[in-house]
Amino acid sequence: MASYLPYDKNLPYTYVLGIFPTIEVLNHRADDILAFIYHADFDGLGSLKARCDGLNIPFLQDHKLLTKLSPKENVYLAAVLAKKDYPVKAGNHIVLVNPSNAGNLGTIIRTMVGFGWCDLVIIRPAVEVEDPKTIRAAMGANAQLRVSYYTSFDQYRMDYPNQVNYPFMLKGSIPLQTMVLAGNQNISFIFGNEGSGLPDSFLAVGTPVKIEHSHAIDSLNLSIAVSIALYHYSLAAEF
Amino acid sequence: MASYLPYDKNLPYTYVLGIFPTIEVLNHRADDILAFIYHADFDGLGSLKARCDGLNIPFLQDHKLLTKLSPKENVYLAAVLAKKDYPVKAGNHIVLVNPSNAGNLGTIIRTMVGFGWCDLVIIRPAVEVEDPKTIRAAMGANAQLRVSYYTSFDQYRMDYPNQVNYPFMLKGSIPLQTMVLAGNQNISFIFGNEGSGLPDSFLAVGTPVKIEHSHAIDSLNLSIAVSIALYHYSLAAEF
Repeated sequence: MASYLPYDKNLPYTYVLGIFPTIEVLNHRADDILAFIYHADFDGLGSLKARCDGLNIPFLQDHKLLTKLSPKENVYLAAVLAKKDYPVKAGNHIVLVNPSNAGNLGTIIRTMVGFGWCDLVIIRPAVEVEDPKTIRAAMGANAQLRVSYYTSFDQYRMDYPNQVNYPFMLKGSIPLQTMVLAGNQNISFIFGNEGSGLPDSFLAVGTPVKIEHSHAIDSLNLSIAVSIALYHYSLAAEF
Repeated sequence: MASYLPYDKNLPYTYVLGIFPTIEVLNHRADDILAFIYHADFDGLGSLKARCDGLNIPFLQDHKLLTKLSPKENVYLAAVLAKKDYPVKAGNHIVLVNPSNAGNLGTIIRTMVGFGWCDLVIIRPAVEVEDPKTIRAAMGANAQLRVSYYTSFDQYRMDYPNQVNYPFMLKGSIPLQTMVLAGNQNISFIFGNEGSGLPDSFLAVGTPVKIEHSHAIDSLNLSIAVSIALYHYSLAAEF
């Protein structure tokens, strides 16, 4: 029987920790689940096994591995998920340039999927979408996401030359609430790193947008900025 | 010279970790700073000392304490901050019922202050506003926040009987985007715990509101929900 190693980004698989995220992944990417790891105290084993009848996914009881994967929190169920590429499709994209915090990235993915945005472009270096911390914060919504990686924004732009680009910057010229979106065009909402934001070169990319806030704070948290943009789009798209 | 202990919620002081949050606290609550703790490698010591001339705040070099306070991350500067009550004032309030995640709470505080909402009501049991993890996620914005604690929502309501209440619930009757705010009335936006949300009893409190999202996710992250509500208010208040 296969045995699985503590998470390392070079492994061909990752871990989905917790019952809710694991069920989400079962709902959407069952074919990519290599195994379930469960704790002796997990009380939903019978119904999960019944549900997986015919899927041929092994069930392994291994609380030591669960403890290694999540030292601070009791985890009763995890899925071992094969890493697999689901590249973005043409449409609206969120583009994150050098995101560095797995929790932020997971929260962004959860919100994106909640607002019907399922295509994420990441400009590396960046934290990994397949990091177990990202998946945990995403509450399994990563299973409904398509992701493409690039090493530069210019490279992305060559692949998608017709996107209408909106970089979000403190120096943005258009306040978000005045932004009017042209219908039937594919748009990209672009956000920079948590600490440094987007470099000034993005002032020349499309229409730079700012989310207005008081001077009492330096900036909004990245996941908050993305979520406010997605909410605003949902308003603009509706009316 | 005083020595300070690793954080414990029963101590009369807490810690502000990191240069940016420490400077924020110095800007807004200098009188409550008991000491600065710095690392030998902190290169802004001279300018910080010059700035604190006359304030009589001791500077202690103690990298062991910094490591204990933040084992995973190098911290070069921290402030020891006396806990002190700054209760909420009459006005608009955010009310959090049993929030349990320090990172979420800090992100909410940062966004609140950014949108000019400086009054937070917390219904206990709850994570502490003065937890160093909360302060860290707030990026020091907690220094501009007023907080009152209650043991039940009813108790809060007795103190503020004239607030116009908007509990945010998945079962809310009014979608956020259709919410029309009455002018010149004090409002309370009320949110439940990260995992369980608000109990159904809140359906009878004021006007229950929902933030619409697709069924692809179970719910939005708490800090995202609060931030979207604050953004929406900023639109409604403006026009």
